[in-house]
Amino acid sequence: VSDPNPADEIAVLPAEPVHAATAQDVAQAARVSRIMVSRAFNPDASIRPEKRRHTLDVAAALGYHPDMAARAMVTRRSKLVAVVVSSLANSWEAQEIDALIGVLQQDGLSVLVFRVAHKSIASLDFAHVKAYRPAAVIAYMDDLRPHLLRRAFGNSPALYPVYGAHPPEDAGEPLVDRLHIAQHQGIADAVRLLAAAGRSRLLYVQGEGAASDQDRLLALQQAMKEHGMRFIGSIDGRFDYAATRAALKTFWGGNEPPDAIFAANDTSAFGVLDALRHDLGVEVPKACAVVGFDNIREAGWQSFDLTTVGVDLSERVRAIRGIIRRRAANPQAPPMVETITARLVVRGTA
Amino acid sequence: VSDPNPADEIAVLPAEPVHAATAQDVAQAARVSRIMVSRAFNPDASIRPEKRRHTLDVAAALGYHPDMAARAMVTRRSKLVAVVVSSLANSWEAQEIDALIGVLQQDGLSVLVFRVAHKSIASLDFAHVKAYRPAAVIAYMDDLRPHLLRRAFGNSPALYPVYGAHPPEDAGEPLVDRLHIAQHQGIADAVRLLAAAGRSRLLYVQGEGAASDQDRLLALQQAMKEHGMRFIGSIDGRFDYAATRAALKTFWGGNEPPDAIFAANDTSAFGVLDALRHDLGVEVPKACAVVGFDNIREAGWQSFDLTTVGVDLSERVRAIRGIIRRRAANPQAPPMVETITARLVVRGTA
Repeated sequence: VSDPNPADEIAVLPAEPVHAATAQDVAQAARVSRIMVSRAFNPDASIRPEKRRHTLDVAAALGYHPDMAARAMVTRRSKLVAVVVSSLANSWEAQEIDALIGVLQQDGLSVLVFRVAHKSIASLDFAHVKAYRPAAVIAYMDDLRPHLLRRAFGNSPALYPVYGAHPPEDAGEPLVDRLHIAQHQGIADAVRLLAAAGRSRLLYVQGEGAASDQDRLLALQQAMKEHGMRFIGSIDGRFDYAATRAALKTFWGGNEPPDAIFAANDTSAFGVLDALRHDLGVEVPKACAVVGFDNIREAGWQSFDLTTVGVDLSERVRAIRGIIRRRAANPQAPPMVETITARLVVRGTA
Repeated sequence: VSDPNPADEIAVLPAEPVHAATAQDVAQAARVSRIMVSRAFNPDASIRPEKRRHTLDVAAALGYHPDMAARAMVTRRSKLVAVVVSSLANSWEAQEIDALIGVLQQDGLSVLVFRVAHKSIASLDFAHVKAYRPAAVIAYMDDLRPHLLRRAFGNSPALYPVYGAHPPEDAGEPLVDRLHIAQHQGIADAVRLLAAAGRSRLLYVQGEGAASDQDRLLALQQAMKEHGMRFIGSIDGRFDYAATRAALKTFWGGNEPPDAIFAANDTSAFGVLDALRHDLGVEVPKACAVVGFDNIREAGWQSFDLTTVGVDLSERVRAIRGIIRRRAANPQAPPMVETITARLVVRGTA
């Protein structure tokens, strides 16, 4: 009647015995509050070790352990936060999601990571994400627009970390909770630094053409105009080391070379550095300065020593946690926007 | 009566309306099988687009969406896979977990990521992980020993990716399902390469002193003996760029320098390269060869161009998926071990 489906095989697992004891039973037997039982099972909640040990011992004796599935059934909202990302293999996403998991665990929340391909975004209805009734959805995807999130998650606290301009359809009333990262000032500071060093011909390495990327270019062009720098064009780096390195080599062959390059993220800036130094024999920063964006951990490594524009990781993560907490405290509030500011970090490449 | 607890605030969210329609209702109305309904909601299941669209349209008209929480209640086992890791911010873990999420989604499984600090492992009972009734638990932690996993998860298909020796307590009958990565041959090949290039004094940069790390050192010492190379000692790199760079600078001050360095992972090999080139003015590979372990994506970047020992990412991920599938098909089978082999990847540093 139907195709064989490996996914359905996995559901056919033996039933475990149903646990009779409830958290209330444990609280009574252990002579602690119901909330203390919940906290004892949260390894990040700060309670006295002997109190935790005692509570967990009583729970074990009664055969109790918390059932998050049952809890989601009762509250119609789980203790899960869904993170939607195109790739965890990129350092920026991996470093931020790692830190985020750390702080959310302290709030008793667990994190589900969903990978979504860029090309399939428009047709997704996110049923597989919604099925877990997440308490929050955090979308690390530039091309996942607010109206798509709104359509998929309604009034859920879907967060949408954005670098740069408010998305056009969202400029007045925001459609979903949003963390907005103001990048204009950091970019203007970078251009001022380049201009002061006598640079005059700037090349931009674009990312994937998303809104934040276009805004970055806009800010760059505005600042260049102020300082009398010439914009000699963009190459397509796709936020990727290898794509950037190949594109820069090709560009260099047939064009007047730039004396400064701004890359849409640090990983493509590393591709720029390796192309300049190893493929083209161009000295950095003497013959060509390089500026990145993000300030990932590797930007500080001596091989790169990259001047870049970014927001402190702990500040980003604190802001996301703050929005989730405020949304939980006030589920009916209109969508909220919080803004944090990207700053120039000066190292050796500019 | 009890401390304020932010975790408990979050549970106090308004109830959503209960959905009356079941998957069976959707199947009947759409004239498809029950399994087809489940597949239509799995974005990675391959079914004809018009069939998916039709099924999702009918589901939307009936107000149905799958409830994974309810499903976990019924089957007593969720469609969740729990990944336990000390940090996602490390490239090796991030790249493997990213690829793993990709293939598990194709099987209709979603991935929960839990961060666990090394220091708290021995006292953890993993109640917060067990509460989600994961279909599998994958532990990316060297110091999370099989007997701890066994105690926490019983006969669950807890996977334990291991580089190197079988853990001592597990050498005969394995206690949990395990992916074992045989590293001896790759390390022996690396030492043969170094010996053929006339290297004679080797320094080891150790990781965190875990079992796999000790096995790596054992394999190294054995191969050095065969080739008449001298082992001049270990420094403590903690699998970390900055710690390795600092440790190597300190070591260099007061000791006879090595002419070859083997690092326990690629990230610490990058710290070695930057210390040699930028802090100590030592030419690589001329004055000192460097070999890493893992073959992460960055090892191929021209700034590093690192010779390293590793297993192909897709091979690792295919092996983990295979164990999860076999375990699902046969929940009562004794713990299984699958072995894959790490190979030498020769690039510019040795």
